[in-house]
Amino acid sequence: MTTDFPTVPAPDAEARRAAAARQERLTKPAGSLGRLEELGVWVAACQGQCPPRPFTRPRVVVFAGDHGVAASGVSAFPSEVTGQMVANFLTGGAAVNVLAAVAGATVRVVDMSVDTDGEGLPEQVTAHKVRRSSGSVDRADALTDEEVAAAIAAGRAIADEEVDAGADLLIAGDMGIGNTTPASVVIAALTGAEPVAVVGRGTGVDDQGWMRKAVAIRDALRRARRVCDDPVALLRTSAGADIAAMAAFLAQAAVRKTPVILDGLISGAAALVAEELAPGASAWWVAGHRSVEPAHDLVLDQLDLRPVLDMGLRLGEGSGALAALPLVAMSARLLAEMATFEDAGVTGRDAPE
Amino acid sequence: MTTDFPTVPAPDAEARRAAAARQERLTKPAGSLGRLEELGVWVAACQGQCPPRPFTRPRVVVFAGDHGVAASGVSAFPSEVTGQMVANFLTGGAAVNVLAAVAGATVRVVDMSVDTDGEGLPEQVTAHKVRRSSGSVDRADALTDEEVAAAIAAGRAIADEEVDAGADLLIAGDMGIGNTTPASVVIAALTGAEPVAVVGRGTGVDDQGWMRKAVAIRDALRRARRVCDDPVALLRTSAGADIAAMAAFLAQAAVRKTPVILDGLISGAAALVAEELAPGASAWWVAGHRSVEPAHDLVLDQLDLRPVLDMGLRLGEGSGALAALPLVAMSARLLAEMATFEDAGVTGRDAPE
Repeated sequence: MTTDFPTVPAPDAEARRAAAARQERLTKPAGSLGRLEELGVWVAACQGQCPPRPFTRPRVVVFAGDHGVAASGVSAFPSEVTGQMVANFLTGGAAVNVLAAVAGATVRVVDMSVDTDGEGLPEQVTAHKVRRSSGSVDRADALTDEEVAAAIAAGRAIADEEVDAGADLLIAGDMGIGNTTPASVVIAALTGAEPVAVVGRGTGVDDQGWMRKAVAIRDALRRARRVCDDPVALLRTSAGADIAAMAAFLAQAAVRKTPVILDGLISGAAALVAEELAPGASAWWVAGHRSVEPAHDLVLDQLDLRPVLDMGLRLGEGSGALAALPLVAMSARLLAEMATFEDAGVTGRDAPE
Repeated sequence: MTTDFPTVPAPDAEARRAAAARQERLTKPAGSLGRLEELGVWVAACQGQCPPRPFTRPRVVVFAGDHGVAASGVSAFPSEVTGQMVANFLTGGAAVNVLAAVAGATVRVVDMSVDTDGEGLPEQVTAHKVRRSSGSVDRADALTDEEVAAAIAAGRAIADEEVDAGADLLIAGDMGIGNTTPASVVIAALTGAEPVAVVGRGTGVDDQGWMRKAVAIRDALRRARRVCDDPVALLRTSAGADIAAMAAFLAQAAVRKTPVILDGLISGAAALVAEELAPGASAWWVAGHRSVEPAHDLVLDQLDLRPVLDMGLRLGEGSGALAALPLVAMSARLLAEMATFEDAGVTGRDAPE
């Protein structure tokens, strides 16, 4: 298995120019739809055509995995919740399911490293499973060399499967008790931030838990800094099978010229690594929202992404990306379906009275 | 015709309490859906039931009207555009049409005071028309006593018609070249702001036009301040038939216990007056977005409303409210459709490991 990615193509410059020009001709004051205009231009550039097509198969893949560091008491919830939530995704009771239904997306769940034997789960869920729980990143590596290669191959394969099945917009969601700890470590390692700048409340840990989490992140960051110039080594040492697969998924989505809406902290950590694995991938991404987690701002700054929403979300699962999906869908349809001044017989600006 | 509104009932406190309690039992960390949780609670309170129903008939009414002040060169577009855009709404080519289609809403257009004879327009569009163009608010009253009463009666009747036809969420949109001038005057009059604090670019007027607009607003505000304690007199003197009808529509929506997503500047000016006409109405409103127009922030502050979106929009038509509609719809469905910890067999927080 190789961990090398092909060169990422840039979104289409000609479609981008045509889209920007079309925004000036639609029946609205130029620029009056603000960010919705910018998003429409980005969609056109990603699709390589203007006007853009409406999205027909937006797809969320939720990467589930446990983390050994949870045993250190860094989360408000016990690890058994990860597997229970996988079941909840499959029966449609989780936030990601409801949000996807409203936004017109469908949901796939993959068990990368949940701490169960996966018994009773559909083959599609467990086919890419790498191990039961990733290692505790503060004292041991998250993965072995073989495991990180397998997780990266899985993420690539999943992106390929989805694009081949017709997905025209991808979202990477996450589920895993303890996963904000390795994500925060990865972000600190790649942005040069101090540990205390990245320690958030995750699912809502109390003050004692926050201090335990700060200690775990501090210790894990010492280990991460040694390998932060090598994205694969960083995933192996400090991430986990879920985050490694997400990083590869995001990189491969860009290789496959498929636009992505990023979610929050975990998706952001994976995105930082994906940009290292496949430089230029971030041109294919838009940030769905700004998470409450402090480390997420570091991701947005480093990738120069401006979030569509700022609604105080901190759930994961892809929820913030799905909340933004209707706005991205609107942006494409506005650009494609609005009448031009000429078509509608509407007088343009500064016409003589 | 009376301009008195009945007392506005408060949203249901018991449903609000039940909704807040239900948010704690759903399979997510408490509070992790941030503003989406708050919106869901608000929807439940407005509907008087928990869990809330999904919205089945969200409805936008676009109030179209011209303004005499446009002759002073305060807009980048000529007045003929208002009537042309009414035709564009009816053939589905405007932003409001596309946004409504994505958000699952339908659009109605009413010609309150467009500067045309309305020939060829459907009866439903022109049935409530008060006059051709409202008066130039800097030198003459916008409306007569009879006209303001007719516009208020029209706004109430339209809200009643829509609620009686099953609308379960209402949006007031606007279309009118020059309408940011009277709206800004009304906002300055009701918030005590200086003229220069409310002068925006509207559809994108140039520097010379901005200065003409500033002069018009300064002059109009002298006239408005004399009547700012009387909301009906303020509408008559300084608003116009479109804004007067919107104010009455927003007030009556609250009387009819129907939730509203507010749009931007024009909707905000109408909302300030509506809260004067029917105190307590604002409890039935959520602010869809923060407009680029500087006076809109004054509205949000005065009504203590926090915008859902901040996307640099300045189009009107109800566009910012429609952009927020999927998020409000998501908030209701999350609260109604997510599984509880108990139902899904998911362990709650801080359970013993």
